[in-house]
Amino acid sequence: MNESVSEAVDSEMEGLISDLQTLIRQPSISAKKQGLNECAVLVSQIMIRAGIKSEVLNLGRHDSNQRKEDIAPIVYGEVRSKMNPDAKTILFYNHYDVQPEEPVEFWDANPFSGKVEGNYIYGRGSADDKGELITRIKAVEYFLKKTGDVPCNIKFIVEGEEEIGSVNIEKYLSKYRQKLAADGVIWEFGYVDEKNKPIISLGMKGLLYVELVAKGPSRDVHSSLAVLIENPAWRLVQALNSIRNTNGKILIKDWYKEVRKFTPDELDSISREPFNEQEFKSHYGVHKFVNDVRGIEARKSLAGMPTCNISGIVAGYVGQGAKTVLPSTALTKLDFRLVPDMDPKRQLQRLTNHLKNYGFGADIGIKLIHGESAFRTPLNQPFVKQVKDSAEEAFGVEPIVSVSSSGTGPMHSFVKILGAPCVSVGSTSIYARIHSPNEFARIDLLNKATKCIAAIIEKFGKQRLPI
Amino acid sequence: MNESVSEAVDSEMEGLISDLQTLIRQPSISAKKQGLNECAVLVSQIMIRAGIKSEVLNLGRHDSNQRKEDIAPIVYGEVRSKMNPDAKTILFYNHYDVQPEEPVEFWDANPFSGKVEGNYIYGRGSADDKGELITRIKAVEYFLKKTGDVPCNIKFIVEGEEEIGSVNIEKYLSKYRQKLAADGVIWEFGYVDEKNKPIISLGMKGLLYVELVAKGPSRDVHSSLAVLIENPAWRLVQALNSIRNTNGKILIKDWYKEVRKFTPDELDSISREPFNEQEFKSHYGVHKFVNDVRGIEARKSLAGMPTCNISGIVAGYVGQGAKTVLPSTALTKLDFRLVPDMDPKRQLQRLTNHLKNYGFGADIGIKLIHGESAFRTPLNQPFVKQVKDSAEEAFGVEPIVSVSSSGTGPMHSFVKILGAPCVSVGSTSIYARIHSPNEFARIDLLNKATKCIAAIIEKFGKQRLPI
Repeated sequence: MNESVSEAVDSEMEGLISDLQTLIRQPSISAKKQGLNECAVLVSQIMIRAGIKSEVLNLGRHDSNQRKEDIAPIVYGEVRSKMNPDAKTILFYNHYDVQPEEPVEFWDANPFSGKVEGNYIYGRGSADDKGELITRIKAVEYFLKKTGDVPCNIKFIVEGEEEIGSVNIEKYLSKYRQKLAADGVIWEFGYVDEKNKPIISLGMKGLLYVELVAKGPSRDVHSSLAVLIENPAWRLVQALNSIRNTNGKILIKDWYKEVRKFTPDELDSISREPFNEQEFKSHYGVHKFVNDVRGIEARKSLAGMPTCNISGIVAGYVGQGAKTVLPSTALTKLDFRLVPDMDPKRQLQRLTNHLKNYGFGADIGIKLIHGESAFRTPLNQPFVKQVKDSAEEAFGVEPIVSVSSSGTGPMHSFVKILGAPCVSVGSTSIYARIHSPNEFARIDLLNKATKCIAAIIEKFGKQRLPI
Repeated sequence: MNESVSEAVDSEMEGLISDLQTLIRQPSISAKKQGLNECAVLVSQIMIRAGIKSEVLNLGRHDSNQRKEDIAPIVYGEVRSKMNPDAKTILFYNHYDVQPEEPVEFWDANPFSGKVEGNYIYGRGSADDKGELITRIKAVEYFLKKTGDVPCNIKFIVEGEEEIGSVNIEKYLSKYRQKLAADGVIWEFGYVDEKNKPIISLGMKGLLYVELVAKGPSRDVHSSLAVLIENPAWRLVQALNSIRNTNGKILIKDWYKEVRKFTPDELDSISREPFNEQEFKSHYGVHKFVNDVRGIEARKSLAGMPTCNISGIVAGYVGQGAKTVLPSTALTKLDFRLVPDMDPKRQLQRLTNHLKNYGFGADIGIKLIHGESAFRTPLNQPFVKQVKDSAEEAFGVEPIVSVSSSGTGPMHSFVKILGAPCVSVGSTSIYARIHSPNEFARIDLLNKATKCIAAIIEKFGKQRLPI
């Protein structure tokens, strides 16, 4: 690793923290369409100050069914190598949007304060994904500052809709396909485990996110009428109960039909992933896992098991005290995690058929919020080894290679449109409370991740990869 | 009926409407402890202006486990007959509190405006129960105004916690037992059916109102972990599904054990109650009833079938867009309607045992919000005939006698403590949207109900009832 760049990472941590705080303090909540343009401009400004050529890009009015002003822009960044103009191009994929801050009452400080306490920076987005983004920008900045150049060509795509399922990323990738062309993609996040080992993750699960709305009487009525009028909350409870059993198994016909089995290599890799079951359980305050899985079965589930999760449910009166009401509607938000080779459209059709066949077709409506396919980068991709070696240098321990994250991201779209392999590596503690109150980034891990990115950039410039 | 009183009812409707608007414009929401003292004082002032001796009474600090300031006061009113001081005493039971106004977005006007349009007065409490209360006060006021006296002794008890289950009414009745002593009680409301026939109702169902809280991980977590961590919303869905089947039957062991059968007289009365199934269904926008009951079975259900209703349920993210979260808790509010001779305490124990036996004991907690027994006044009580005759005079049609309302009220406590029979009669259209947006009172029915109350007062003064 370039020594002067590595020294700059150490000596300029205050600048990194300060820029991260600036980003956290600009709320940018895609679910609420709050502060997105503002945050995109901010990211672009930080890139420009770092010496990266940057612009904010939009979809045109004909690129989408949505109104143009409802689509968050992307931030593009680029630095071409002077010494090595024909070098390969690395693309950093990140996002500037964050999850909603609710429930606010469980935050110890303002979710958008960026408060620093010892080794921790708190705030929504501190880890996911503003913390990761800043390590990438800073690695490039320090190369430019210390060497006046970068060893390979570098591009950035920073989107604003990751937390709502990257609903327009395919359109952006298609529209700016030439501009974004790259030979390898560093994915937007990477976990670090409880023993400070970086986790190199090669895949993402897919997602089918739907809203089910059960309709009952034409308006809320006094609950004394529950003896005659069916409560839509009961209908929703019955429908939900028909979808998943107590062991977490999804009961929809053919749901698992296209689930791809792990290869022997993948199984071998999974069996070598460390996973501290007891620490995990005590961290989250749970006594046993769904279906009581243990050991390698738990790890296999994280990497490759589909789920059906109730992200939200609401009906009737949930305020203080007793209100005896029979609500006119009941709503639930379900997220189904998908794995290769499940197709979101086909799964949605199966869910629709299921509700119809179980007698819920007339009173429960389905609204598709988002569908996204899963993807896994093969273990033997040469780019994987390069990232792994860089992480080992920066973190000083052998990284863990993970066949797939349990989370979702548009990796499938990147590979399909850009044809470049995608690998995840980053700075996020597995206990960083992403999507939860008191989300944090660890300063020591931000430091190491920045060095890791610098090492990747250096290696990418030296080798012509057989991609 | 006293002609001059009856004429006063017609000529002074504007005063009645204006006083009702004054009451509606003072929000008094017991579930939120909002405006209760203010409304009690207002009711007392209206009584005093009507010539009724009135005071606002409180429970002392030793009367309840609650903090004194958390208990709503009652309003007491009294007029003694000068001409007939040894006459029987009639007690009017009403309440000044109302249901929460939510969901506000479905109201066509401010819920507390008391807007008049043609024959309708809109607003939370316009029917339930401020509309009913004002007819009783006005009937007494017009007697005093036109005759300088009342034909029997009259008392009022107006409580402020009916909508949260009359949680302190037994304590008030016990503490002020002497002061409230009466020979007959006119209950706080009475329905009028779609053909403008008054419904004389003789019973109330009981209520068991509980909150179930399912606990999952120690905080909200990213829903990618749903593959290992059980979602408390799923646990709640499973628990709810174990409590009630799709036909509305409650599956808790021995739940129906003490349910009292109807007497032959009651069955006969129920069979003669008109009930326009089609109009009822189209009014509420439903196509069939729970368990597909029809005809007399539907009427028997309303009068005497226990229910389990989901008054509220909430977990996770229910805002705009997609948030992929696994919530740390899930909550539901259940109201179980009880019938004679079910005991709320025993039923709570059965529910607790059920959850334990079905494996929900460790992660689902039960909080009792309120328990109340059911009661039915016998059909052959002489007071019943007197009220029925008065209603026939005032409404000009033969009233319907209903064995029991489908709703809940503390009738059981009144009978137990005061020993006086209770009969419901009033002005509320069965379609008045009580507890719902756009609740209304019909001015023509307020007029007739006031005349009906006047007739009851007159008859009560003339006869020494063999109670």
